[in-house]
Amino acid sequence: MNILITAGGTTEAIDQVRGITNHSSGRLGKAIAERFLAAGNQVTYLATPTAAKPAELEAVTIKSTLDLYEKMQYLLENQTFDAVIHSMAVSDFTPVNTLNKEGFIEAFSRELTDPSPESVARALDALSEGVASASKISSATEELIVFMKQTPKVIRLIKMMQPETCLVGFKLLVGVSKKELFSVARESLVKNHSDFVLANDLDDIFGTQHLGFLLNGAGLVAEGTTKSAIAEMIYQAVKTKIEEESES
Amino acid sequence: MNILITAGGTTEAIDQVRGITNHSSGRLGKAIAERFLAAGNQVTYLATPTAAKPAELEAVTIKSTLDLYEKMQYLLENQTFDAVIHSMAVSDFTPVNTLNKEGFIEAFSRELTDPSPESVARALDALSEGVASASKISSATEELIVFMKQTPKVIRLIKMMQPETCLVGFKLLVGVSKKELFSVARESLVKNHSDFVLANDLDDIFGTQHLGFLLNGAGLVAEGTTKSAIAEMIYQAVKTKIEEESES
Repeated sequence: MNILITAGGTTEAIDQVRGITNHSSGRLGKAIAERFLAAGNQVTYLATPTAAKPAELEAVTIKSTLDLYEKMQYLLENQTFDAVIHSMAVSDFTPVNTLNKEGFIEAFSRELTDPSPESVARALDALSEGVASASKISSATEELIVFMKQTPKVIRLIKMMQPETCLVGFKLLVGVSKKELFSVARESLVKNHSDFVLANDLDDIFGTQHLGFLLNGAGLVAEGTTKSAIAEMIYQAVKTKIEEESES
Repeated sequence: MNILITAGGTTEAIDQVRGITNHSSGRLGKAIAERFLAAGNQVTYLATPTAAKPAELEAVTIKSTLDLYEKMQYLLENQTFDAVIHSMAVSDFTPVNTLNKEGFIEAFSRELTDPSPESVARALDALSEGVASASKISSATEELIVFMKQTPKVIRLIKMMQPETCLVGFKLLVGVSKKELFSVARESLVKNHSDFVLANDLDDIFGTQHLGFLLNGAGLVAEGTTKSAIAEMIYQAVKTKIEEESES
C-alpha cells in the first residue's frame, strides 16, 4: 500500500523570529509510520522540522499551514495514496496583522465612528485586513495585539482530490468528557469526510500513556492506551478497510 | 570555571495546545557548551525542550519565560558562576488575553465611551488585563485577537544577583545595517550590564554560515563566520576576562 502520514505541529510566522506554534511532538505519527513500514508499505512522511521521524525515511518537511496546503496538494496531484493518516496538529489561525499599543490606538480610533458594537466590528475588520509583519517587532514595544484569521482546512483537500483514499483524521481536545470528545470527533469525521478519526484528550496523554479512541461513522472501532497500541489499531483498521474495498 | 549557558527559544502558551514561540535551534548554544566542556569546565545547560544539546550533559529544561525566570533565579541563588552565556531567544511578550471576534466586539464596545483615542486606550487597557485562556480555543472561531504584554527581562537578573560574573548577552536583528546592529547591540550591553554581546543578523545566518560580532564596552572584540568560530571567540574572550580579573 502507498500511505501518506503527516506529523508534528505547524508554525505560523508573526515576524521573522516569532511564530504561533501548535505543540505536537510527532511521536504518534512516527509510531504509525513505523508500523506501516514494518509491514512493507510505501510511506511518505510529511512533517514539521522538529517532529519525531522514523530513522529509515527521508521526511518531506513543511513549517506553516500554507506550506502544508501546497505540499499536500502537490502530493495528491502526483501520487495515489491508499490511505492518508493526518496526525499533524495544524494551526487553525494565522496572524494577519500585528500592532503595538500606539499603533492599535491610532488605527482603531481612526476607523471608529462611534462606540457601538457595529462600529467596533467595522474597525476590527479593517485592522484584520493587514498582512503579517515582515521584519522583527522591536522588543521595546510594551504591548502587542495580534489579529489572526482562520487558515484553510487542509484536511478537506484530501477527499476532494482523492475520494477513494482511506482518510484517518485526528481530534485533540482538552479536559472534556468522553461523551463530548466522541461527539466533537464524530462531527469532524462527517465534516471532513474521514473514514476514521482518532479522538484523544490532552489530559490523558502523559509519559508513555496515550489514551486514544478510534471512531468511524458507526461508532467506536478500537481504543488504545499507548502510542504503539494506537499505531497498531490504526494500521489494522486501515488495512481491513482497504482489503474490503478491493474485494468488493 | 563554572559556566551557565542558556539555549533554544521559549514558548508562551496561548492555550493548552498553542503557543507563541521564539525560533532558535540552540545549535550555537550547543557549540559554545561543547567548547567550554572540551576545556574541562563545569557547564550547566539551561535549554528549551527542542533545543540542540551537548550529548555529554543533562540539560535543565524550561518552556516559558516565567519558567526561565524562576529556574535562573534558583540557579543564581545556589551556585556561583564565573560566566553566564545567555544565548536563549526569550519571548519578549506573553499572551494575557485571547478573544474571538464576537468576544472582542462585545467587550470592546462595552468599555468604549466614545471613539476618541483616549477611550480606545482605556478599552485596550481593560482588555489587556485578562489572563491566558485556560482551555483549548475552539477551531471553529473565525478570528482570534491575542493581547500580549512584555515579559520581565530575565537577563537583568544575572548581574543583579551575581555582579562578579562575566555576562555574555545576545542580540539578533533582521536585515539591518552593520551600524544599526552594532548600535542596538551596544545599547543592550549597557542596559543589561553585560560584559560582552554577540550581535548577529538573521539574514547572515543560513546553512553552515553564521556571521557574528562580539562586542564589549570598548567596541568590536572579534568576529566569526561559523557557529564553531563564534563559540571559540566567546570562549577565548570569557577566559581572558576571568583570568585578568583573578590576577587583579
